Amino acid sequence: MTALKGIVPPMITPLINESKLDYRGLEKLIEHLISGGVHGVFILGTTGEAPSLSHALRVDLIKYVCDQVNGRIPVLVGITDVSLKEAVHISDKSKEFGAQAVVLAPPFYYQIDQNELYHFTEQLIGEISLPVYLYNNPGLTKVSFEIETIRKLLSNPEVIGLKDSSADMVYYHRLLKVAQDSEVPLLIGPEELLMESLLIGGNGGISGGANMFPQLYVSIYDSVNSGDLNKARELQRQVMELSGIVYSGNGSSSVINGIKCVLKHMQICPNDYIVKPLNKASKDKSERINQYLTNQKLYV
Amino acid sequence: MTALKGIVPPMITPLINESKLDYRGLEKLIEHLISGGVHGVFILGTTGEAPSLSHALRVDLIKYVCDQVNGRIPVLVGITDVSLKEAVHISDKSKEFGAQAVVLAPPFYYQIDQNELYHFTEQLIGEISLPVYLYNNPGLTKVSFEIETIRKLLSNPEVIGLKDSSADMVYYHRLLKVAQDSEVPLLIGPEELLMESLLIGGNGGISGGANMFPQLYVSIYDSVNSGDLNKARELQRQVMELSGIVYSGNGSSSVINGIKCVLKHMQICPNDYIVKPLNKASKDKSERINQYLTNQKLYV
Amino acid sequence: MTALKGIVPPMITPLINESKLDYRGLEKLIEHLISGGVHGVFILGTTGEAPSLSHALRVDLIKYVCDQVNGRIPVLVGITDVSLKEAVHISDKSKEFGAQAVVLAPPFYYQIDQNELYHFTEQLIGEISLPVYLYNNPGLTKVSFEIETIRKLLSNPEVIGLKDSSADMVYYHRLLKVAQDSEVPLLIGPEELLMESLLIGGNGGISGGANMFPQLYVSIYDSVNSGDLNKARELQRQVMELSGIVYSGNGSSSVINGIKCVLKHMQICPNDYIVKPLNKASKDKSERINQYLTNQKLYV
Amino acid sequence: MTALKGIVPPMITPLINESKLDYRGLEKLIEHLISGGVHGVFILGTTGEAPSLSHALRVDLIKYVCDQVNGRIPVLVGITDVSLKEAVHISDKSKEFGAQAVVLAPPFYYQIDQNELYHFTEQLIGEISLPVYLYNNPGLTKVSFEIETIRKLLSNPEVIGLKDSSADMVYYHRLLKVAQDSEVPLLIGPEELLMESLLIGGNGGISGGANMFPQLYVSIYDSVNSGDLNKARELQRQVMELSGIVYSGNGSSSVINGIKCVLKHMQICPNDYIVKPLNKASKDKSERINQYLTNQKLYV
Repeated sequence: MTALKGIVPPMITPLINESKLDYRGLEKLIEHLISGGVHGVFILGTTGEAPSLSHALRVDLIKYVCDQVNGRIPVLVGITDVSLKEAVHISDKSKEFGAQAVVLAPPFYYQIDQNELYHFTEQLIGEISLPVYLYNNPGLTKVSFEIETIRKLLSNPEVIGLKDSSADMVYYHRLLKVAQDSEVPLLIGPEELLMESLLIGGNGGISGGANMFPQLYVSIYDSVNSGDLNKARELQRQVMELSGIVYSGNGSSSVINGIKCVLKHMQICPNDYIVKPLNKASKDKSERINQYLTNQKLYV
Repeated sequence: MTALKGIVPPMITPLINESKLDYRGLEKLIEHLISGGVHGVFILGTTGEAPSLSHALRVDLIKYVCDQVNGRIPVLVGITDVSLKEAVHISDKSKEFGAQAVVLAPPFYYQIDQNELYHFTEQLIGEISLPVYLYNNPGLTKVSFEIETIRKLLSNPEVIGLKDSSADMVYYHRLLKVAQDSEVPLLIGPEELLMESLLIGGNGGISGGANMFPQLYVSIYDSVNSGDLNKARELQRQVMELSGIVYSGNGSSSVINGIKCVLKHMQICPNDYIVKPLNKASKDKSERINQYLTNQKLYV
Repeated sequence: MTALKGIVPPMITPLINESKLDYRGLEKLIEHLISGGVHGVFILGTTGEAPSLSHALRVDLIKYVCDQVNGRIPVLVGITDVSLKEAVHISDKSKEFGAQAVVLAPPFYYQIDQNELYHFTEQLIGEISLPVYLYNNPGLTKVSFEIETIRKLLSNPEVIGLKDSSADMVYYHRLLKVAQDSEVPLLIGPEELLMESLLIGGNGGISGGANMFPQLYVSIYDSVNSGDLNKARELQRQVMELSGIVYSGNGSSSVINGIKCVLKHMQICPNDYIVKPLNKASKDKSERINQYLTNQKLYV
Repeated sequence: MTALKGIVPPMITPLINESKLDYRGLEKLIEHLISGGVHGVFILGTTGEAPSLSHALRVDLIKYVCDQVNGRIPVLVGITDVSLKEAVHISDKSKEFGAQAVVLAPPFYYQIDQNELYHFTEQLIGEISLPVYLYNNPGLTKVSFEIETIRKLLSNPEVIGLKDSSADMVYYHRLLKVAQDSEVPLLIGPEELLMESLLIGGNGGISGGANMFPQLYVSIYDSVNSGDLNKARELQRQVMELSGIVYSGNGSSSVINGIKCVLKHMQICPNDYIVKPLNKASKDKSERINQYLTNQKLYV
């Protein structure tokens, strides 16, 4: 695949219950994203609740999404796992169903050093046949891909891009230099940092909020690229406001249940089911979100 | 099962390679443990590399161990997983093959609060049919079972014991009070703290070192119970010395590869294969261990 | 001075306000401690609010305490400071007024490595004329005295003892070996761990609770030394109960304001003034403490 | 004073030894900064080694700097201390010698909550007569000024500005909104983030590197203000390169000894003495810096 740049939503997984996908919600969500102009879609990430899903359900999701997208935009699949073999399995299924690339964060149970991380990743890349985005997310995986580890892994041509969710912009700056030296794109996770990452030379965002308002995030991307800094600032201000309301709360639940709650109010995914251990939005939060959506001129 | 007290080694998993158990090593190891007087065996824990093993291999291991032990001592199986459904699956297999109980630590990917941890655990316990040991291990799972969460979960009679690997003895003291109020045993993880945990009223240890020298750990347990404090101190001193040499190094590899290296030198498990991302003992470490074993009067 | 073993309360500083000592409270407290059988007193530690006090007030306190104690028990003075020169100044004053030793934790602002910590400490010891207790307290100083750093510093005969408040009993075990090799005493900070530290060979406690109930802590020390494990367990159980009530709350305030509140109820120090940024006990906490003191048979 | 915007170097403290300022180096450094176009100077910060200096030396420095600057640019003085009274003392001296404002980070020893931090800060502000910049620096002070705490403190008109060294740009974004609501400037600490902080609306930088190359940092500030994004990016790239070389190493020493080493090579401050516990640049680092300065076209 060619280098992916732009806005690639980390898709939430619409669910009826913990064992069953909401196929209709899934179809509507995918069409909502594509018509919103996103440049790709990333399934089975943190936002997609991948770690909480059974392996069977993950495979089901990959198949359905690849079929529905049908080549219109690239599909990236998260394969992060504590077991190398299980990660290879998900990658094989992704290849079989037509995904374009996989996204790989470090194994997240044991305490490992950079040498161990390098060899795990290098072996894993060697055992799969889809190209790989390396994904740094130390808040959840405990271990970080250090700059020099990334540089070594980039000597493998199967590594075609990078994603960083550290929210550490000094690290991001240094990673950007490595990405540019290797001519691969670097995408940022936290949408609160989308505009500035683009202004300093980053290539796009894996923005959770693009599940809800894809055009808002695509417009930030376009505004920066066209040099319209004032527009970019105003749109980023809207992202900050949204973030303060929709993602309010603590822990991993807060972002995912906020997005699912908005998609329910927007009648894209009527079911806001979330797999344990995460929790759906409280009634209070749901009401604050509803009020916000009502008063807000929806982003276009 | 009746309350398990005493020394329960967290068994390492003897492997030929990442997809194949070392059945002969496994058989010899199990017999070594039983003849060493251990009070039970705990498979598929951290020391057993469970998170790194494929699900198929885990099931294979459960079956083999249960067959080999054949009811002589209780078999406990680690079912900790980021996905509730996958944890239930391993528990079902454990029941099917004849294990006596399962051991459950918190799901270890998302950032969750105590309320989320409680509901996840409560649902999981409800879906399985083996009794449960709750296992606190915040260094690896990020979230801790707080005292009040444990107290609430103990109202479920399916929770029959506790294990703590926090290495936080103030927490252990408070947990011990809760365990005693509910009349369930509390076992400690870090073997460096075995003697003192027993002296203050704890009920045993999930001691990694008991893979190698089961009698040493059983003797500490017996010495404290018989009031022979001087003997207990001398044996614990040997554990500290062993710990400084066999577990030297950093990160999760250091303990597991030390044990596997000793078992290789002892010709119990000739293969010290370890699954990525962990690393086998360096040549230097292996030589230091060999020297230690040679000069040391072996524990009896 | 000869090696100090036993119970050495980290004395709270009785205050009228942030600029004025409560001399009468101070006198009563010192007499309370000495008649309670403590083996020494440690002033200007964390519990003594030293970092919050002006330098002038610290000097005033040293003089008053040394005069009042008048050689009946050793007086140790905390000199921990971010500035080496200011630490030397407090040590000089301690010497001048007749204190027996100083207690030194690492400088607590900058991020430093063990080499830097070693050279800072070595120079400081060289510039003062009182013997030194090294004090490990990483929760507040950020940097820990690693075992090898302590071992090197112990080659200086001016280092006559160790205190550890890490609450990390694996570290304590390893430190104990170093202390024994150098024949210096090792005292423990957290009183919740007092009994077990003594059982494994430690030499005493810098127990905050001994400000209130010196005999309780002295009795634990004596019980372990005389081999009465049952009595030690029962007394330690009382310490755990006290700790749960008197130190309830979060942060550094909780311990210090609990002690000051009890001393107020006991009419030893009628004023429970505490210097900002710390906070006195809430009305609720004060009432819980009062109830606890009323229902409790006072420790003898 | 009017709101300070732009580049305000956190001045290093030129020293002959731990008790003596290098007055000639100090004079040359101040003239170097003023001729480089900086908008103010901040003394006795982290970069100025304030915590390591004796109180007497701090007072000496304030007097000398205020005399030498003589009103040409504003002088800000760091008063951060663990003791409120000692902070007030330094502020009084700053006022006496003619400084324009003080800079205050949280007290950094005890573990305190936001309520305690608020009341400490509010009392301190009430006791001093110079206007205050609040300074967030959780990596060194352990506690962070949370957004709502800052908002409450800003209701006091004596708080005239903010500085953030958290390197957390999501926090910075939220803080920027509060600063703009209160119409006070927000300056950023880490120079690696200078350009992006300005692009999203920040007001300047407390950039350590401006000790060495004031014009480089002033040019970044001017480039962003004039809308020359390409120039800003190129200059920021130079800052990143400088940062990688001059600040190489770990811990607090690395930045300060890098700056002192460069100023020595530039013959502005011939003495690179640094107070313990920090360490001067190793010979290797000094040589790498020398080579860098030789090959580099000096920034203009």
